[in-house]
Amino acid sequence: MKQSLRLGVAGLGTVGSAVVRMVARRADALAAAGGRDVRITAVSSRDKGRDRGLDLTGVTWFDDPVALAASPDIDCVVELIGGSEGPARATVEAAIAAGKHVVTANKALLAKHGAALAAAAEAKGVSLAYEASVAGGIPVIKTLREGLAGNAVSRVYGIMNGTCNYILSRMEREGLTFEACLKDAQALGYAEADPTFDVEGFDTAHKLAILTSLAFGVEIDAEGVSVEGISAIQPLDLTMAEELGYRIKLLGVAQVAAGGIEQRVHPTMVPKSSAIAQVMGVTNAVTIDADAVGELTLIGPGAGGEATASAVVSDITDLAAGVQRPTFGRPSTALSPSQRVAMQRHEGGYYIRLTVHDRPGVAAGVATRMAERDISIESILQRRSESAASKDPHGRSGQPVPLVLITYAATEGSIRAALDAIAADGLLAEAPQLIRIERE
Amino acid sequence: MKQSLRLGVAGLGTVGSAVVRMVARRADALAAAGGRDVRITAVSSRDKGRDRGLDLTGVTWFDDPVALAASPDIDCVVELIGGSEGPARATVEAAIAAGKHVVTANKALLAKHGAALAAAAEAKGVSLAYEASVAGGIPVIKTLREGLAGNAVSRVYGIMNGTCNYILSRMEREGLTFEACLKDAQALGYAEADPTFDVEGFDTAHKLAILTSLAFGVEIDAEGVSVEGISAIQPLDLTMAEELGYRIKLLGVAQVAAGGIEQRVHPTMVPKSSAIAQVMGVTNAVTIDADAVGELTLIGPGAGGEATASAVVSDITDLAAGVQRPTFGRPSTALSPSQRVAMQRHEGGYYIRLTVHDRPGVAAGVATRMAERDISIESILQRRSESAASKDPHGRSGQPVPLVLITYAATEGSIRAALDAIAADGLLAEAPQLIRIERE
Repeated sequence: MKQSLRLGVAGLGTVGSAVVRMVARRADALAAAGGRDVRITAVSSRDKGRDRGLDLTGVTWFDDPVALAASPDIDCVVELIGGSEGPARATVEAAIAAGKHVVTANKALLAKHGAALAAAAEAKGVSLAYEASVAGGIPVIKTLREGLAGNAVSRVYGIMNGTCNYILSRMEREGLTFEACLKDAQALGYAEADPTFDVEGFDTAHKLAILTSLAFGVEIDAEGVSVEGISAIQPLDLTMAEELGYRIKLLGVAQVAAGGIEQRVHPTMVPKSSAIAQVMGVTNAVTIDADAVGELTLIGPGAGGEATASAVVSDITDLAAGVQRPTFGRPSTALSPSQRVAMQRHEGGYYIRLTVHDRPGVAAGVATRMAERDISIESILQRRSESAASKDPHGRSGQPVPLVLITYAATEGSIRAALDAIAADGLLAEAPQLIRIERE
Repeated sequence: MKQSLRLGVAGLGTVGSAVVRMVARRADALAAAGGRDVRITAVSSRDKGRDRGLDLTGVTWFDDPVALAASPDIDCVVELIGGSEGPARATVEAAIAAGKHVVTANKALLAKHGAALAAAAEAKGVSLAYEASVAGGIPVIKTLREGLAGNAVSRVYGIMNGTCNYILSRMEREGLTFEACLKDAQALGYAEADPTFDVEGFDTAHKLAILTSLAFGVEIDAEGVSVEGISAIQPLDLTMAEELGYRIKLLGVAQVAAGGIEQRVHPTMVPKSSAIAQVMGVTNAVTIDADAVGELTLIGPGAGGEATASAVVSDITDLAAGVQRPTFGRPSTALSPSQRVAMQRHEGGYYIRLTVHDRPGVAAGVATRMAERDISIESILQRRSESAASKDPHGRSGQPVPLVLITYAATEGSIRAALDAIAADGLLAEAPQLIRIERE
């Protein structure tokens, strides 16, 4: 048998500890799969004194992960520190500079510095592997990079943030507000004390940028993702979605469009009958549309120590087996430059919830403004406020009431222009709610 | 760049032709992904004169695929002839003997001769790759072999035959009989003139045996699969399933059980809310339960020239990139012997549809026989025939009526014994229908 693959694990939080345990527990299986023993020879973490319940006998401890990365007794650095800068970035850069393979779960690092790191890894002839960075335990990186080599991908989209999906699932099932569900998610440990990164869509944007690069062979461009979170979603939107045959999910979507690749993260109406609509709670799902396979959907755990460690160990086993593939599926020099497509040019169906004054002619006024911009309306739902105290002879209260429109495919630019005109007409009592529809 | 990977394609049917076209169409992408050019240098098929619309300029034609396999101008033989014996087997054996890699879509060949072929490939240091053999375009082989190396798998199950799923989906949606749907499936080309291999579950059994070997690290044992097809499913079963919150799918299931691995193919009740229940028509789906990732589900096309070619080309690209993994995830000598578990010992919930004489005391008689064997009943549904001409004062017709039971977990042996006792009591007007329930 070949020489052992010697691992240095930088970061012993939930995922790092799970990796250490998994490598020990599955030692025989990993050796059989990779053709050589896999051993952890060094670790690094902030607090040496903390009891993590790990057997670290014979393992060298480094206080400084950068020193670990440079150690001659390591073949591969497993970076599980997190963050796009600071020690995580320094550790990965040092590892590559020292000619060591890198396995990481760090989506922020890849989203921001992936292009430079991939080029550096190539120059040194080492691997930069990151299965765990997107959708936790779902092997979506491997699927896109290796499983679909014969395909031209036209769209990749998915639920890639468990926090948001948990919140939206509970809002839907229990009719609760965003704020109430967020509080519960925080209490359960599904959301951070500062939830902005998750609920405003930035986490999903990082993951999407990675998938975009792999799926379309373009340079990673996280800055080019249009991002909108779920904090403005109201219980009424979920009720309306239900009535109209949809569910609301925070999706990341990358698709081929005129002039480039559209990259967008936003709350999305998906048909209730679609596979992705069934995905509830903290589960993740990714769907890939490609010319040869048609539609492929992968559903599984998006987070958690064990599930994430599963992806890390998959990368480690590939390295043990001598597998080296270009970081983003092809050499850095073969990646096309990112060509952004402005959201104004996005074309799709829209759910528009207006809060209008309950007066004669309002619906007609709205419809006219839409028609002026060639926006076709598929359905209109109007709700009268039944509790309103005074009503005119037609049952109108004069109070603000919701008016919901579903449009056929239209450009975002024309929708926005129509809404501006409707607002200028003085028909709106509140700012409009706009949710994009994604068809299968 | 390294030397080209030279392919010999044996078999130019739907899949073979799609592979030839895909390798040409994706030449640049495959070279970028695999680090070397991929070229088809030889082909073989039965009818040289037939126009397949392929550009075979500069490609050597072999009338005999075994001669192709031995050609010195080929690095990898792509076997797309099909069948567990005859030219397919001879071609694969000749290719391995000549030290060439093999990529195949041939599930029957692997199910029957996989162990011997894997050992031969190992001895020669070549790869035997077969992503296309199970679930068409879904990368389930790669996922089990590489993506879940850190996991102990406890169960793998799925819808792996599009013909059966198409028939069951139509029976459910349109209330049609098995026979009527089969006829339509044949007219649409989804079913063969002799549909036995598909509808009686043997095709699923071959695929399941391959997944079992990979998932559990055991020697492939297709003979050890308990097989039951869908031809006895009646429209009434689908109606009852709907009422009880289930759908009926033909599943292949392999799971860890006391004393070994249970391998079974049978019509199965799955909860309507499960991801696998949403899979309709010719689509396939595979779910993997494993200790680290929990549950992972892959959904996609199970057949079709392009989707199958996608899987073949994925294997080809792996070879171009120099990836070589043991055939069944670990060396042949490291596979455990198959330990069969008798279906009598299977434990699970059951749907039992009895056709009983509509007389006093029948339900009580049935329940007593169940209770004697410690079988707990979750629900009972009884339907009176409303059109029966003569009824006694209690509304009983004396005519045969359906009596449906859902049991809690029980062993198949005890269920069978109870049904034998019920039959011996003379309560049954027809043989009972028994459908196993698979919980998430």
